[in-house]
Amino acid sequence: MTPLTPSDIWADITAVRERAPLVHSITNFVVMNFNANVLLAAGASPVMAHAHEEVLDMVGIAQSLVLNIGTLEPAWIESMRLALAAAARRGIPTVLDPVGAGATPYRNASIARLLDTAAPSVIRGNGSEIMSVAGAAVQTKGVDSSAGANDALASARALVGRTAGVVCISGATDHIVDGTRHALLSNGHPWMTKITGVGCSATALISAFCAVQGDAWRATVSAMALMGVAGEAAAEKVVVRRQGVGSMQVALLDELQLLDQASFAQRLRIECKP
Amino acid sequence: MTPLTPSDIWADITAVRERAPLVHSITNFVVMNFNANVLLAAGASPVMAHAHEEVLDMVGIAQSLVLNIGTLEPAWIESMRLALAAAARRGIPTVLDPVGAGATPYRNASIARLLDTAAPSVIRGNGSEIMSVAGAAVQTKGVDSSAGANDALASARALVGRTAGVVCISGATDHIVDGTRHALLSNGHPWMTKITGVGCSATALISAFCAVQGDAWRATVSAMALMGVAGEAAAEKVVVRRQGVGSMQVALLDELQLLDQASFAQRLRIECKP
Amino acid sequence: MTPLTPSDIWADITAVRERAPLVHSITNFVVMNFNANVLLAAGASPVMAHAHEEVLDMVGIAQSLVLNIGTLEPAWIESMRLALAAAARRGIPTVLDPVGAGATPYRNASIARLLDTAAPSVIRGNGSEIMSVAGAAVQTKGVDSSAGANDALASARALVGRTAGVVCISGATDHIVDGTRHALLSNGHPWMTKITGVGCSATALISAFCAVQGDAWRATVSAMALMGVAGEAAAEKVVVRRQGVGSMQVALLDELQLLDQASFAQRLRIECKP
Repeated sequence: MTPLTPSDIWADITAVRERAPLVHSITNFVVMNFNANVLLAAGASPVMAHAHEEVLDMVGIAQSLVLNIGTLEPAWIESMRLALAAAARRGIPTVLDPVGAGATPYRNASIARLLDTAAPSVIRGNGSEIMSVAGAAVQTKGVDSSAGANDALASARALVGRTAGVVCISGATDHIVDGTRHALLSNGHPWMTKITGVGCSATALISAFCAVQGDAWRATVSAMALMGVAGEAAAEKVVVRRQGVGSMQVALLDELQLLDQASFAQRLRIECKP
Repeated sequence: MTPLTPSDIWADITAVRERAPLVHSITNFVVMNFNANVLLAAGASPVMAHAHEEVLDMVGIAQSLVLNIGTLEPAWIESMRLALAAAARRGIPTVLDPVGAGATPYRNASIARLLDTAAPSVIRGNGSEIMSVAGAAVQTKGVDSSAGANDALASARALVGRTAGVVCISGATDHIVDGTRHALLSNGHPWMTKITGVGCSATALISAFCAVQGDAWRATVSAMALMGVAGEAAAEKVVVRRQGVGSMQVALLDELQLLDQASFAQRLRIECKP
Repeated sequence: MTPLTPSDIWADITAVRERAPLVHSITNFVVMNFNANVLLAAGASPVMAHAHEEVLDMVGIAQSLVLNIGTLEPAWIESMRLALAAAARRGIPTVLDPVGAGATPYRNASIARLLDTAAPSVIRGNGSEIMSVAGAAVQTKGVDSSAGANDALASARALVGRTAGVVCISGATDHIVDGTRHALLSNGHPWMTKITGVGCSATALISAFCAVQGDAWRATVSAMALMGVAGEAAAEKVVVRRQGVGSMQVALLDELQLLDQASFAQRLRIECKP
């Protein structure tokens, strides 16, 4: 396998900025605003629509779809099922964020219903979420992870076996796997877990990148690399100014928009395993 | 026609700050928080309530109403219909933001239902949205505009013919028309389109201004002028500091609150046509 | 009664930071994002879930519950009732924010339904909200307060008589009362009322503090003290920089995270009455 270079990834970042893909998001109430701003800062065009009456039409004009079950309820899960099935029929990329997988039986059943509808191109979650989706028994503490990313790698591979897609485990080190490839990214900053919706926004970015890069594994690596490097750069700036997580949320959007190739390449920490 | 002066507009901005009108908003999930903060920064008092059980009572204590269909669904459209009818009966100003008009048949049908309920005092949208609402055939790419503001002017006038109200087309130049008047505003900054909810918040501001200024055309001009000048001033500051759209969102709220008359008058670019 | 010292309160602030309690929130659409960020900045772990299908399970893993009726509708009030009853059965602390109490009959009836379900450990509102909940006739202007905090004290005591819990009236001076104790806090800044969700976030913080401090009155005092001091410190910084309420929202999150014991103790203005 030829490893991805910083230039490969930068080409994907540039493609999102230049092509402004229309990303249809059905996501949770908590992060809708921030997700939309993250997509806009990275150059994508977000659209959020969930009514059963229009969800198929909106999928019909979108370049990719992202689903996030954070504040799920039956009518919204049905919106997601309709959209996922339509996106699969159209052949546009689909990305699923199984927020809080393992926390409640209803959440698990809803994820199972979505996976029975169609296999998402990419699933992104923290270690415990991926283990739960893959069927492993793991204690979930709300929406945070109690399992290390490494512990979840076997679950991720099992899930890939089922979806034939890409699985991303996010954490201090992100792991992105498909049937044959495994990338590890170690950018980021612990404060990224202290801003609500950073993980959800990473999932939204993956969807934007899948819209411009046909290799979903590479698109996922590129999106996670952008989020990790931008978060790290943002943290560095706010820590120097003795600011905190409020300022970091703002700085993260600035970095997603303004990060240049030289800074990106200098910061990127990527490893590709066979 | 006597053209509006910067002093006229400043008087309206001051009236919002001093009278803190209660603006009832039924808007989309993505922008609720930002819209509320924009209204507060400009001096207004936002209230957001949509339950069918209380929407009439809330209209009963509000000074104006704003409706935004961004994340529409049947129950919310019904809330909007109930509120719009009640506001029309009470005679308080009503403002409609037809987000994504033209993107799906359901969206178009919902706008038609609202317009059949009562004619809003003001409708604000981008060029393609206004063209779609007026019935012109136009391709909409999600919630962004693909039609230039000038192309939409004929549609705006047709819509005015139907509502006997005010129509505002926002874009690099904003056009505000009623049956006899036409104002053009050319303040703002391209990054305003890279922050979710700036357009929706402009619509909310129009509603606040209509609550204190009985001439809805003048109120719309004043609200759009404030948003354009505040956005331009915010962009200038963040660009100098090498910051981006995250910082600009914050700076925009600061400017809406703190902008003074001298800076406003100096920046304002307005033209009134017969 | 032994008055609370700054060290007592600081111990509670530290306990939230170190123990990261899982706070289950069923709150309004407008403030969900900001509330989650406030909880994270203070060190707590927010989880937001409202589906009837999972709300009992989520209460089962949470350390405390917070309910906020801002954008209420029947299905959400039912979620709150289910969660409140389950939390009461489990014995975890429950906090209610009766946003806009008095504004509409439906809002009042919904609050009555919640209070009939179980008595919350703590109720926090502004003066007119507390008076309305207690049954006093008071004019409410939307979600803002028209009654002074002092006027509402008798209502708060009447409410304590009913719930046997804690009632907090927030305002320029906050009053926290239970059956025998009364604390007054006079930190904060007027701009805190110009940022949407600051009051709602104070309620969320109370819930986090109740999860680590078994004395709900002391927990409420500590949470309100943190919010007041952090808001005051944030305002001071942004005013010096000639910034406004947009910057203050960001700075408030920074202060909630980074405030140290010396600054806190120096600023705190607390009075404990018999």
